[in-house]
Amino acid sequence: MSTTDKQLRVGMVGYAFMGAAHSQAWRTVNRVYDLPARARMALICGRDTGKVADAADRLGWEAYTTDWRDLISRDDIDVVDVCTPGDSHAEIALAALAAGKHVLCEKPLANTVAEARAMAAAAATAQAAGVRSMCGFNYRRVPAVTMMRQLVAEGRLGVIRHVRATYLQDWIVDPQFPLVWRLQRDRAGSGALGDIGAHIIDLTQFVTGQLITGVSAVTETFVKERPLPAGSSGLAATVDGAGSADGNGSAPATGPVTVDDAAVFVARLGGGALATYEATRFATGRKNALRVEINGSLGSVVFDLERLNELEFYDATRPTTEQGFTRILVTEGDHPYMSAWWPPGHIIGYEHSFTHQMRDFIEAVATGADPAPSFADALQVQLVLEAVTRSADLGSSWTEVEPALATVAA
Amino acid sequence: MSTTDKQLRVGMVGYAFMGAAHSQAWRTVNRVYDLPARARMALICGRDTGKVADAADRLGWEAYTTDWRDLISRDDIDVVDVCTPGDSHAEIALAALAAGKHVLCEKPLANTVAEARAMAAAAATAQAAGVRSMCGFNYRRVPAVTMMRQLVAEGRLGVIRHVRATYLQDWIVDPQFPLVWRLQRDRAGSGALGDIGAHIIDLTQFVTGQLITGVSAVTETFVKERPLPAGSSGLAATVDGAGSADGNGSAPATGPVTVDDAAVFVARLGGGALATYEATRFATGRKNALRVEINGSLGSVVFDLERLNELEFYDATRPTTEQGFTRILVTEGDHPYMSAWWPPGHIIGYEHSFTHQMRDFIEAVATGADPAPSFADALQVQLVLEAVTRSADLGSSWTEVEPALATVAA
Amino acid sequence: MSTTDKQLRVGMVGYAFMGAAHSQAWRTVNRVYDLPARARMALICGRDTGKVADAADRLGWEAYTTDWRDLISRDDIDVVDVCTPGDSHAEIALAALAAGKHVLCEKPLANTVAEARAMAAAAATAQAAGVRSMCGFNYRRVPAVTMMRQLVAEGRLGVIRHVRATYLQDWIVDPQFPLVWRLQRDRAGSGALGDIGAHIIDLTQFVTGQLITGVSAVTETFVKERPLPAGSSGLAATVDGAGSADGNGSAPATGPVTVDDAAVFVARLGGGALATYEATRFATGRKNALRVEINGSLGSVVFDLERLNELEFYDATRPTTEQGFTRILVTEGDHPYMSAWWPPGHIIGYEHSFTHQMRDFIEAVATGADPAPSFADALQVQLVLEAVTRSADLGSSWTEVEPALATVAA
Amino acid sequence: MSTTDKQLRVGMVGYAFMGAAHSQAWRTVNRVYDLPARARMALICGRDTGKVADAADRLGWEAYTTDWRDLISRDDIDVVDVCTPGDSHAEIALAALAAGKHVLCEKPLANTVAEARAMAAAAATAQAAGVRSMCGFNYRRVPAVTMMRQLVAEGRLGVIRHVRATYLQDWIVDPQFPLVWRLQRDRAGSGALGDIGAHIIDLTQFVTGQLITGVSAVTETFVKERPLPAGSSGLAATVDGAGSADGNGSAPATGPVTVDDAAVFVARLGGGALATYEATRFATGRKNALRVEINGSLGSVVFDLERLNELEFYDATRPTTEQGFTRILVTEGDHPYMSAWWPPGHIIGYEHSFTHQMRDFIEAVATGADPAPSFADALQVQLVLEAVTRSADLGSSWTEVEPALATVAA
Repeated sequence: MSTTDKQLRVGMVGYAFMGAAHSQAWRTVNRVYDLPARARMALICGRDTGKVADAADRLGWEAYTTDWRDLISRDDIDVVDVCTPGDSHAEIALAALAAGKHVLCEKPLANTVAEARAMAAAAATAQAAGVRSMCGFNYRRVPAVTMMRQLVAEGRLGVIRHVRATYLQDWIVDPQFPLVWRLQRDRAGSGALGDIGAHIIDLTQFVTGQLITGVSAVTETFVKERPLPAGSSGLAATVDGAGSADGNGSAPATGPVTVDDAAVFVARLGGGALATYEATRFATGRKNALRVEINGSLGSVVFDLERLNELEFYDATRPTTEQGFTRILVTEGDHPYMSAWWPPGHIIGYEHSFTHQMRDFIEAVATGADPAPSFADALQVQLVLEAVTRSADLGSSWTEVEPALATVAA
Repeated sequence: MSTTDKQLRVGMVGYAFMGAAHSQAWRTVNRVYDLPARARMALICGRDTGKVADAADRLGWEAYTTDWRDLISRDDIDVVDVCTPGDSHAEIALAALAAGKHVLCEKPLANTVAEARAMAAAAATAQAAGVRSMCGFNYRRVPAVTMMRQLVAEGRLGVIRHVRATYLQDWIVDPQFPLVWRLQRDRAGSGALGDIGAHIIDLTQFVTGQLITGVSAVTETFVKERPLPAGSSGLAATVDGAGSADGNGSAPATGPVTVDDAAVFVARLGGGALATYEATRFATGRKNALRVEINGSLGSVVFDLERLNELEFYDATRPTTEQGFTRILVTEGDHPYMSAWWPPGHIIGYEHSFTHQMRDFIEAVATGADPAPSFADALQVQLVLEAVTRSADLGSSWTEVEPALATVAA
Repeated sequence: MSTTDKQLRVGMVGYAFMGAAHSQAWRTVNRVYDLPARARMALICGRDTGKVADAADRLGWEAYTTDWRDLISRDDIDVVDVCTPGDSHAEIALAALAAGKHVLCEKPLANTVAEARAMAAAAATAQAAGVRSMCGFNYRRVPAVTMMRQLVAEGRLGVIRHVRATYLQDWIVDPQFPLVWRLQRDRAGSGALGDIGAHIIDLTQFVTGQLITGVSAVTETFVKERPLPAGSSGLAATVDGAGSADGNGSAPATGPVTVDDAAVFVARLGGGALATYEATRFATGRKNALRVEINGSLGSVVFDLERLNELEFYDATRPTTEQGFTRILVTEGDHPYMSAWWPPGHIIGYEHSFTHQMRDFIEAVATGADPAPSFADALQVQLVLEAVTRSADLGSSWTEVEPALATVAA
Repeated sequence: MSTTDKQLRVGMVGYAFMGAAHSQAWRTVNRVYDLPARARMALICGRDTGKVADAADRLGWEAYTTDWRDLISRDDIDVVDVCTPGDSHAEIALAALAAGKHVLCEKPLANTVAEARAMAAAAATAQAAGVRSMCGFNYRRVPAVTMMRQLVAEGRLGVIRHVRATYLQDWIVDPQFPLVWRLQRDRAGSGALGDIGAHIIDLTQFVTGQLITGVSAVTETFVKERPLPAGSSGLAATVDGAGSADGNGSAPATGPVTVDDAAVFVARLGGGALATYEATRFATGRKNALRVEINGSLGSVVFDLERLNELEFYDATRPTTEQGFTRILVTEGDHPYMSAWWPPGHIIGYEHSFTHQMRDFIEAVATGADPAPSFADALQVQLVLEAVTRSADLGSSWTEVEPALATVAA
């Protein structure tokens, strides 16, 4: 814990899967890193009084409120952490910025390009007044991912020729899995594309330092009608038998799935590389399989989120007979973010990426620097998502990504 | 060895990489399988007298000739095995079929759809006269691949949702690698697309039992000009210093690369699955990395040619807590083709796929059955390649594959 | 967080590697599990005032003291958590039990059998008075390890024939690595044997439900003299240049390594299995490589701590052609301990084993049950360590393990 | 094929599993390697006329005989290849050497030390007369194994600290598997120990260049009585129902298993390394799992026979953050033995190790060099086996290996 007395009082909106992950990170970050400010878990916000009160108690927040406008209006909150579904990101984040709060907003930044554009503009305005903002592409902070970026930046891969990115899940393979909010366009914006495709877009752009310039895409909804849900938590859910059409539970009411189940696209990066992307929730047996391979003229790297402590690195400048993919266990003290944790070989988990994200966010805010990825970076991802959707609508025709002002600086 | 005295006298055209692989298979097949006919390595053909004489001696052929028309015209040849570059497949195979010879032709069947169409027609005509023909997509006969097809056919994967196929090599990453015949359109037809892309097209159609109906594609030639070659063997080659522009070796003459270095495309299969394909020679560190993953509603399979004795199978009908990808070592006596080889766990290699191919070819010819894949099957692959090229030329627009009469029966 | 108001006020002795890991667990456990009592991080104890004050602040303890006797004598402490080096375990734990405190003691339980015997006796006495005690073999609570035990208990492996256990590290391969406390017999009791060998002894006995009955052993100290240390943290350390013999830093003072660098032994388990064990700090490239394979008449399991979210299970009752090692990602909600964490495929890390340990400890104490492993269980491990040492001293002669009253109940 | 006309006329005794593997190698070796002599498959010998005639035809031998003394006495045989069970090795090899034939003898060299000693002496005598002999430890010629030896010899591993060798199979886990000759001491000499343990003893001594000096061992026979066999092939066999006690098939006659099912031992190598060995036929799920790991002060290597085209190499002299186990695909043209085969990434199989063995044997014989491993080398392995047996008999007491005159030169 830092010797500083400087505090950042955090107000978090949302308490589901992301809210739990962020809470774990806020709770831990100052315990393992020595930072110029301490995060205080001051206030949590949710619409249901009973549930938010319980969440505050369970997750360790000092107080709760049911009105996010109340949270934003309070003087004793420095940071607003937006963990709600995508349809409310813009409204909350814009209000928070306007109120002079630093904002950490979950990805995807918004459900539409228009919203994202407004948010990026507001962030730029706020930035001039010393207000910081950041979008929560937490996988940038997996040590192996940060290390990939460093290898590319140091030229260890040479000219990048290929990017191969897949994010595969299987939680809705069963046609009886209910119509949760993530399967509804008005809540989630899109399906696999925005939820997990956004992650691999950001991650590959971050690692390569190159932006996607154009795409050719196909999207698919395999199961077009699903039972209405009773309740859900994380990525699990139950069907509401009581909601059945005839009232006796034999045939639950159904509704249309309005988002993509899967999105695949070919892309070109600014530096000339050819890239393929696939995001799907129908890859049976793949639970959280974000996998990226990058081939350059001098070497290659491979990353798999289900083995996030490992990085495979192929160095083509080594003697021919000794070349091969080296499985680096990214747990050494001199690997990114790892000095704070355990001895080599003692692995970390998914949640640590959030702790690392909070670490960088706190440091940036406390020292007056701009954290990355910015809202402008996140807008650029949104523009890629939009180009994918447009290409899919136009028979996969090659579609240029509208330029944003984003960079991919760390 | 069979107790039969029936012989199949084989005449093989070509003696390079494929010629060596086929020779090893013809030499071995009757030693390990009990078949209704014995292959006799009767005659080998190549244009250079010295080289073909040496090849005959080294590879174990009884005689040699420098004229493939001579080979075809001889009465004591039953089977013509075409192992030349793609630009001569059609002429040789058509002549052989016309002469009543059974034909085994290496893939891709031809360099153009027109040639392939003529060959398929000729094969159909010849078939009526009891003449058999087959295209050499040898990977169908890797035991793990055959097993994948069986699992799909038995319904173990349920409805197929995704196919993910890559064939990655890296032998021309170096811009100084010379302009061998495989990099010239007039000899090879196409680059990575026809050479290795054809393999994953055939393999995935074979395994799923579904044909590709449409594609959206991008192709790329990263290195557009290369030194002229001095000599090559297999996939290795040397640059001809003597061919340098100024005659003193300081700047070798170069020529344009007229084929693709990489081809990526999204496809749909007849049964509704979404598929991605990538064939490239620029994937640093990937030597012969044919990898296929298929996700169905009830399970998934994964195959990697660099570990061709293994098959990963995910069975989603198992109890939840015990589900996972099972690494099956496909070396049991009751696995396809394996009863002839060694005890379990004693692995086989790349060349065995050719021995298995010869086994099935000999059996079909000797029993009067039609071997698969037929020329019609191979024409259908050619039509997919053609659709890929067309889509790439048309800004990746979705392009239907012209229907052929092919089936994907085993 | 539980709705209970019941508290367990914890006093922890020690604040180094284990202290940090335990702190992370105490801080997290009630945030993710709903338990019948809440742990309060009441008091931390260390000898150096400045360091323990800093640790209290950094790790989040309410107060600190420099005298462990003070900690034990306080009425407002319910649980004593012993995280010191092995030479002080007995004294502290005995005093704590005598004072009626529940005790959680790090492994190995003690440095000698005599001490361990006294502790087990004291624990038995205290237990009659409702005082609970537990030894910190945290790896039992890795979900994949717990699942291994369940599979064995359910008979899924049949009769166990082989156990193969290695715990490989490499942090002292460099002969210049200094003589830290873990390399001194009077502080650590033994070297690799007690530090990491104890883990695999406990883990395999726990999983198989069988005790080791006899051993044949060899131990080795490869580097017999090392520089004296300046400071250390976790498993890292620096050499004290100022401590050099001549005072000018050119030749640091050295001292004898009095523990084993490596210990290997063959063992028999009560149920007839043949087992091999290896613990070493000289396995270059192996950082924290605890690996266990168990072969039974009906199946096998394999576990690797560096991939602790995975379990490989071979089920020999499956059809022959489909048998293989199934890589189970132990991250489903119905896997042990996992309902509290993230969706499937979102992996956990090393530290979670401590959180799970605290979960079971709190539950046991709060409900008046006896947590496992008990001090008696840990004494039994100590008796195995002692038999290993004796066998090594007697030219590897087969040496029976002295029976304890331990069981291997969960 | 070499331009040479020099022939080596081979007479092979035995035609079962090893006979088939050797035949494949003799048939192939001159087709892929350019050697100073050509092997001719002149004569095969077996006791059963019908079976050996069939084998000659199937495997491609020019002639057959049922009397090995006849084979040895013929003038037109240059090489005697001994592929029989171990109980006849000595008699045949001694006679062949006496007759001036070069001898290739399968491992283990003999069933007893006395026999092996006589054979080594005879080989030394014969060697003075220009007669060559070699023992068939074929795994030395797996390219990855040869490469391991080279890495050690070049000092890339530094001082070797640990060797970890296991050879795990599971073909007799079923108690109803019959009592084949490999389970009878008078035929096989020993069980897992001599059959597969001998391989890992030779392999590790070959790779490290160090001999085992002493051992502490345990052996075990888990299933002590088995049904009598009807027939066997390779490692498979059937039970003879007709051999049942009462003649109606309900209870087949059984016999005692007189060899070990498993053997485990700890050893020390001449250079100071600590080594563990395990050979078993009871490791459910492990088919042919010869796995070796060697840890040195500068690096480590790992080899797995079920993935014999791969070698994992850890180079501890690389930068800390980039260290890891590099999976080298040992299929490059400049890897040992690989220039003769296919392009990189096109894997080879189990049988290729025999082809490589024949390559080296032919070259040595044709050029008047001594092939390795010699009979003296094989005697030394026998002495290790004998020490293992002795230690197991003496309660695992440390037992020195009797020195032989063996070296471990390649």
